[in-house]
Amino acid sequence: MASIRDVAKKANVAACTVSRVLNGSASVAEETRQRIEQAMKELNYIPNELARGMFKQRAGIVAMLVPSIRHPFFSSLADQIEKELYQQGYKMMLCSTGDDIAREREYMKTFRSNIVDGVIMGVSNLKDEEYEAFQKPLVMLDHKVNEEIPVVVSDHRTGGILAAQKFLEGGCRNIIHICGLDAPEVLSFQSHRALEEILSARGVQVKAVEIKWSNFDFDGYLELAKMILEKNPEIDGIMAADLPAVAFLKAARQIGRKVPETLCVVAYDGTYVVDTNLLDITTIVQPVKEIANRSIGVLVDLLEGRPAKPAMNMLEVSLREGNTTKSRIPS
Amino acid sequence: MASIRDVAKKANVAACTVSRVLNGSASVAEETRQRIEQAMKELNYIPNELARGMFKQRAGIVAMLVPSIRHPFFSSLADQIEKELYQQGYKMMLCSTGDDIAREREYMKTFRSNIVDGVIMGVSNLKDEEYEAFQKPLVMLDHKVNEEIPVVVSDHRTGGILAAQKFLEGGCRNIIHICGLDAPEVLSFQSHRALEEILSARGVQVKAVEIKWSNFDFDGYLELAKMILEKNPEIDGIMAADLPAVAFLKAARQIGRKVPETLCVVAYDGTYVVDTNLLDITTIVQPVKEIANRSIGVLVDLLEGRPAKPAMNMLEVSLREGNTTKSRIPS
Repeated sequence: MASIRDVAKKANVAACTVSRVLNGSASVAEETRQRIEQAMKELNYIPNELARGMFKQRAGIVAMLVPSIRHPFFSSLADQIEKELYQQGYKMMLCSTGDDIAREREYMKTFRSNIVDGVIMGVSNLKDEEYEAFQKPLVMLDHKVNEEIPVVVSDHRTGGILAAQKFLEGGCRNIIHICGLDAPEVLSFQSHRALEEILSARGVQVKAVEIKWSNFDFDGYLELAKMILEKNPEIDGIMAADLPAVAFLKAARQIGRKVPETLCVVAYDGTYVVDTNLLDITTIVQPVKEIANRSIGVLVDLLEGRPAKPAMNMLEVSLREGNTTKSRIPS
Repeated sequence: MASIRDVAKKANVAACTVSRVLNGSASVAEETRQRIEQAMKELNYIPNELARGMFKQRAGIVAMLVPSIRHPFFSSLADQIEKELYQQGYKMMLCSTGDDIAREREYMKTFRSNIVDGVIMGVSNLKDEEYEAFQKPLVMLDHKVNEEIPVVVSDHRTGGILAAQKFLEGGCRNIIHICGLDAPEVLSFQSHRALEEILSARGVQVKAVEIKWSNFDFDGYLELAKMILEKNPEIDGIMAADLPAVAFLKAARQIGRKVPETLCVVAYDGTYVVDTNLLDITTIVQPVKEIANRSIGVLVDLLEGRPAKPAMNMLEVSLREGNTTKSRIPS
């Protein structure tokens, strides 16, 4: 990485002149300043080596990037990660991209040029090369870039299998599952693949419905859910993330569909959106604490130069039985 | 604020030597380095003036500090603020204190010494002097420090009055309201004061129950709510923030209390915790978008040297009528 000396050399000035420019000092001729800034750009010089060099080599700050701060899964996870990082002497800064690629790219640039030591990525809409080119420790959630960059992910395949089994137990014949648009690349899509495999193999109708996640517009979900249920009365099973799952439950109540008698719902994630509901909702629960724990463990090892853990860290999900699904019907 | 030159002078070295230390360069004698670091500490020198001096005088980053990232009100507000700041060319970094004073103080120190241009404070557990001593633009939510530092707050007094009127309309005689522990200092406590004033004046029993907010433990709220309702069957009205309000509604259902016939509930905030509930909950709604808007407007004016808006910015709340309260009973 370019040093202040490389910049000085390229601009043909003394290192002190470069730091005077960095320091915003007035005592540098405009022409010299421009030459130095030009050199910095050409060398892609990262000024905050300066800040990082202060007293110790690390800033003690970890960034976390998520699609939406409001998303209950990410806000719960970020909250947990922040608490645990703090125990380990790191602060956390949370930023969100709104699933906007340009915004993700800009934040990554900020993280690279400003004083964070590493990043936990809850979003991954860039090209893999861009993550590979990132010059600080990264931990990816739910997305595998290569064999080196650590990934922390729930065992979503098992999540899909557990959900499929509940639908089969309940004798459901027409199931839909709600996916995000970005889904296929992220590992969580495994839950959808597993659900389709198992149900199709048993001759059960199963169909994916895509909705854009980061909108996070509950009334929108509710309208969509009502429309789907009214147009497709044959649907008797739904798997969806907590929020759309709750939207379908509310829609079902509003149009008089009986849950679980005529409609089984399995929520996926297990955030407080499910906990706070009046119904006990059958839910596939992601282990938020373990995800936080493992992500921090892996990242802090990288930050502190300890031997890295395995690149792929897969954590167990569990089924929490509620009363929005039926238990095995006697055959 | 101390400059790199002040440090050099105090340590009796050249400014370049100071920047070599800042730069983590090896070419400085250990004894000299220590003398310089000592001088930096004594002068409370803030190294990231360097970073801020890079290309332009602002970093383009605003920090927001909240008690909990998971708290639905703050995660919704932060999400909105992030989106709008981005429109204005600023990035946002969200940090949380878990209502821990030491943690708040450390984050403020980080914000001061690292490259954020200003801070939106969703938490305020420090002494007012500490906010006054902060050397960058601050916007306080819900807490007035002095006549200068801008405050953005909902009209909580009206919120309390609107809730009180619903209870009176429903003929409630024994009301409890759930407050946070930190409450009395924050302006949102006005809603509780107003509620008590109006109900007491009408001879209605009204009692405050304190719970620690940032725990954010829904099962804890649920147990507490059940216990309160079982031990105090006379209670026929409850005002609480969204999450505890929902806990009381769930508890009431579990112990067979009829809502609104024998128990009226008014939620306070109007986050998606209320939206996603199966019941339509009567709610005092804080104007999250306007709060985000105004906070950013005031802060960006300060950041960009425009004349500051009035220090006190009070925004209207509204009552959203649901079916967890009764309409006026014929007398």
